[in-house]
Amino acid sequence: MPYRAPVSDFRFLFDRVVGFADVSATERFAEASPDMVEAILGEAGRMSEEVLSPLQRPGDLEPARLENGVVRTSPGFGEGYKAIAEGGWIGISASADFGGMALPMTMTTAVNEMMSGACLSLQLNPLMTQGQIEALEHHASQAIKDIYLPKLITGEWCGTMNLTEPQAGSDVGALRSKAKDNGDGTFAVTGQKIYISWGDNDFTENVCHLVLARLPDGVPGTKGISLFMVPKRIPDENGVPGKANSLKVVSLEHKMGLHGSPTAVMQFDGATGWLVGEPHGGMAAMFTMMNNARLGVGVQGIGVAEAATQHAVAYALERKQGRAGGGGTIIEHADVRRMLATMKAETFAARAIALSNAVAIDMSTATGDEAWKARAALLTPITKAYGTEVGMRVAEMGVQVHGGMGFIEETGAAQFSRDVRVTAIYEGTNGIQSMDLVARKMMDGGEAAFRLLEEIEAGAEEARGKMPKLAEPVWQAAEALREATEALVGQEMQDRFAGSVPYLNAFARVLGAHFHLRAAFQSGGEGPRMALADVYIRRLLPDYAAQLAHASVGAEGLYAMTNDDFLA
Amino acid sequence: MPYRAPVSDFRFLFDRVVGFADVSATERFAEASPDMVEAILGEAGRMSEEVLSPLQRPGDLEPARLENGVVRTSPGFGEGYKAIAEGGWIGISASADFGGMALPMTMTTAVNEMMSGACLSLQLNPLMTQGQIEALEHHASQAIKDIYLPKLITGEWCGTMNLTEPQAGSDVGALRSKAKDNGDGTFAVTGQKIYISWGDNDFTENVCHLVLARLPDGVPGTKGISLFMVPKRIPDENGVPGKANSLKVVSLEHKMGLHGSPTAVMQFDGATGWLVGEPHGGMAAMFTMMNNARLGVGVQGIGVAEAATQHAVAYALERKQGRAGGGGTIIEHADVRRMLATMKAETFAARAIALSNAVAIDMSTATGDEAWKARAALLTPITKAYGTEVGMRVAEMGVQVHGGMGFIEETGAAQFSRDVRVTAIYEGTNGIQSMDLVARKMMDGGEAAFRLLEEIEAGAEEARGKMPKLAEPVWQAAEALREATEALVGQEMQDRFAGSVPYLNAFARVLGAHFHLRAAFQSGGEGPRMALADVYIRRLLPDYAAQLAHASVGAEGLYAMTNDDFLA
Repeated sequence: MPYRAPVSDFRFLFDRVVGFADVSATERFAEASPDMVEAILGEAGRMSEEVLSPLQRPGDLEPARLENGVVRTSPGFGEGYKAIAEGGWIGISASADFGGMALPMTMTTAVNEMMSGACLSLQLNPLMTQGQIEALEHHASQAIKDIYLPKLITGEWCGTMNLTEPQAGSDVGALRSKAKDNGDGTFAVTGQKIYISWGDNDFTENVCHLVLARLPDGVPGTKGISLFMVPKRIPDENGVPGKANSLKVVSLEHKMGLHGSPTAVMQFDGATGWLVGEPHGGMAAMFTMMNNARLGVGVQGIGVAEAATQHAVAYALERKQGRAGGGGTIIEHADVRRMLATMKAETFAARAIALSNAVAIDMSTATGDEAWKARAALLTPITKAYGTEVGMRVAEMGVQVHGGMGFIEETGAAQFSRDVRVTAIYEGTNGIQSMDLVARKMMDGGEAAFRLLEEIEAGAEEARGKMPKLAEPVWQAAEALREATEALVGQEMQDRFAGSVPYLNAFARVLGAHFHLRAAFQSGGEGPRMALADVYIRRLLPDYAAQLAHASVGAEGLYAMTNDDFLA
Repeated sequence: MPYRAPVSDFRFLFDRVVGFADVSATERFAEASPDMVEAILGEAGRMSEEVLSPLQRPGDLEPARLENGVVRTSPGFGEGYKAIAEGGWIGISASADFGGMALPMTMTTAVNEMMSGACLSLQLNPLMTQGQIEALEHHASQAIKDIYLPKLITGEWCGTMNLTEPQAGSDVGALRSKAKDNGDGTFAVTGQKIYISWGDNDFTENVCHLVLARLPDGVPGTKGISLFMVPKRIPDENGVPGKANSLKVVSLEHKMGLHGSPTAVMQFDGATGWLVGEPHGGMAAMFTMMNNARLGVGVQGIGVAEAATQHAVAYALERKQGRAGGGGTIIEHADVRRMLATMKAETFAARAIALSNAVAIDMSTATGDEAWKARAALLTPITKAYGTEVGMRVAEMGVQVHGGMGFIEETGAAQFSRDVRVTAIYEGTNGIQSMDLVARKMMDGGEAAFRLLEEIEAGAEEARGKMPKLAEPVWQAAEALREATEALVGQEMQDRFAGSVPYLNAFARVLGAHFHLRAAFQSGGEGPRMALADVYIRRLLPDYAAQLAHASVGAEGLYAMTNDDFLA
């Protein structure tokens, strides 16, 4: 069952649901005309279907491996990477000054989803590079930009993020890597980093590591951390990679999934690095990269959800079983149909949220409007956590639709489930995303959230006449979320954190329902989009109330259990 | 992190929550005194901790394999099996006439949970044998009982279930295997069977296959199916295995998890078999075996949930990170604590449901009371589906608590998640369980359900004075479930099926809350059991309303989407 790029869904969402016309109407993104969108999505879709999708199974069966210190990638990955690079798909949103297409992040988001759905383990490589490009564009010196950006944008080189250390995972500030000024404009970087996705490969000329480390005068915690560019091979004055740097891949992890993506333990031994951004300003630069990557990771979950849904639908249309057995297939069974409809409805909702997140980023970039910036910041943790939750839930249902066949690896359903699992963990666990939502993203007293909820309620008002049975519950849910948000911003931080995951879940449900409602309304309240909105709003939306009830309980009860009680 | 048997939890549940005293008070189970229970649980717990738990990782890393037609099991599995067999743990509830201990199923349930938590892939072997023993006790001729039961109960031989064929999964009636009367009291059985758990091994003297096949005069569908005992090696008149039968393992599946358990494709080529039960009465015999196995599989999920929770708690107590970093560990973080508390609360709820299910079976066995029989029948699909859902959800949270480490196989957290996945599929998918609940188990017009709900409401009434904040929501939820059940029994079957999974989920939530409430009440409304009940009832129970809302929607909307819409 090959992957089919959901281009028409993207077109519909762009045109009718997430307001992409506002983006194209800006001077900054005037080039992003409907024709351009169609050309880009069509071309990236074809590449995903034809070149990347066939790499999905080989990446699982023949994992990347370390041979005498050299990473050997899965069969065909080199060619697949080349297709991505040559298509220009790494630098869609990168600055035209260095060879990028300077197109909206909304388009990158759609393209990234298609590549993820086709072959997640390979797509992770350009996703990391995209984050690095954005970090360099915002924070690097002109000299570094001139050397690195053109190569990263063409894909001749690729980029990695080196944050985590064994004792410093979610708590980046605990890192111990050191950097020492060499006195010649370079720094000597020393330390061990773990979980480095695509820490090395055998198909790019260079690998550019962005490494967080502490200068001698760096204070403890996140405020004393600086960011360094540490290339695998040191470029000469013409940007040609020369001497090998003092760094190596120590080992690759044996993971539950995503076998095609080498996850490295990296050792830097006085490796030559260049400061990116201000001394001790590493976290700011890292956040640029992480915000991009968080949207990107949410989209990975959605890509896998789409692929797993297609895979399960194809099976259910073919598999004969049960009373429907007289020529009928299992898609006729109500419970199988419930699962498939849920998978489609969840995927659509998550996709709409991710694209509206990207639209907010683009509008912020194009207009500098603080409200758009706040909207993007608010949506990013929701896109990441909900997108990856949907990835997990939908892939799990995909296995279930297959019955016993789902547990057998050759079917491919299990691989989606194993691969996507990490997306809920990396780039900040979903718990971290939720804490970000209820803490940093509510530092405005909930203003950005309330503004969004007003739009949702206005949308429900508008739809009420044509489809009251769907509009009313969306309005009610938005109202309940508004009340819960008012309560939340008055809570102690510990209480917010105790309810942060269910609060985020509720927010995602309301947003998902809002976009389904708009999709149905834009379709005249009939047809398949109306049917799918009905599935989401009447069957899945009611979950918001359970999540809000959970979110409201606060922390106290959790600490009524002692640590010893957990062991009993 | 080795597995620790939760013996004290079992003791508390037996004594204070699920009413095991009623079982011991019967003549049939008079031997099941508190001392006997303590001895059995203690001994089985020690064996699980010391002998089985060390086999968990080797079973994953060195899967069972097929070599020249012979199955070679994972390292240590032969010794582990011997310990189970010699401990008498296969025949705890088997008839004393053939060497069993004739103890209550409630005790078997507790022992099975401990063995599952320690090493699921090995425990599946005796679970299959237990089901076979029960099927033979109820349906086999005296001659077959005399030959097979003593050997199965000692574990010298083990048993398998051969139902599934490539075209006949959930729809057993579509099977094509044939049986022909040899005219000498034996039958020639021919066909291919798939997904045969523990289809062969290298540590028992014989493997006894119970095979469903159709006699020449068997009508199509389930009513024309007969059951045959087809041993790997044919016993002589003294029960000594002799000549190899005409059957073989064709291949073993490459699975997502449970690698230590060989899942075979079996080929029977005119293999010699003996009829078990009446001609064309195979499904009745199979249902005996399946009901037992369904409870057993639910309990597998709970065993894995317990093990995954212990594993995650140990990690969270050790791992330093974040603001709690000044000597503190991640268990101090509200969101991690929420996950761990959820894991414990879900596991406890599922365990209480499973044990009360077993108590109902025992009371039915001991008294012949139809009300107990109906209670057991009602609870079985709930135990199976909820127990395995809890297994999946808790194992997934266990991975999440580990952060990046959870995705790395050497941690062991991922294995729980991969292994337990199949429990939601085999012995009837959870969708099949849910359909069983809303169809067959409601053929009484909901009577068994209403009787149970009365007990739940009475329990809430009793607890209301001491702990109103927990008793009231349980009463409310039971009342809502009663109303939903009244509506359900008036629905068309297709509408019931469309909502069957959420309906079962809601039922499990209410039951789980009921047992937590009773546990807290029995603990005087204070201490860790009160804290855990608070977690379940205030944070997790509210989900019941979302599930009931979903369940009430009916089938129509699902068919408003055409098959083509699913492809779009």
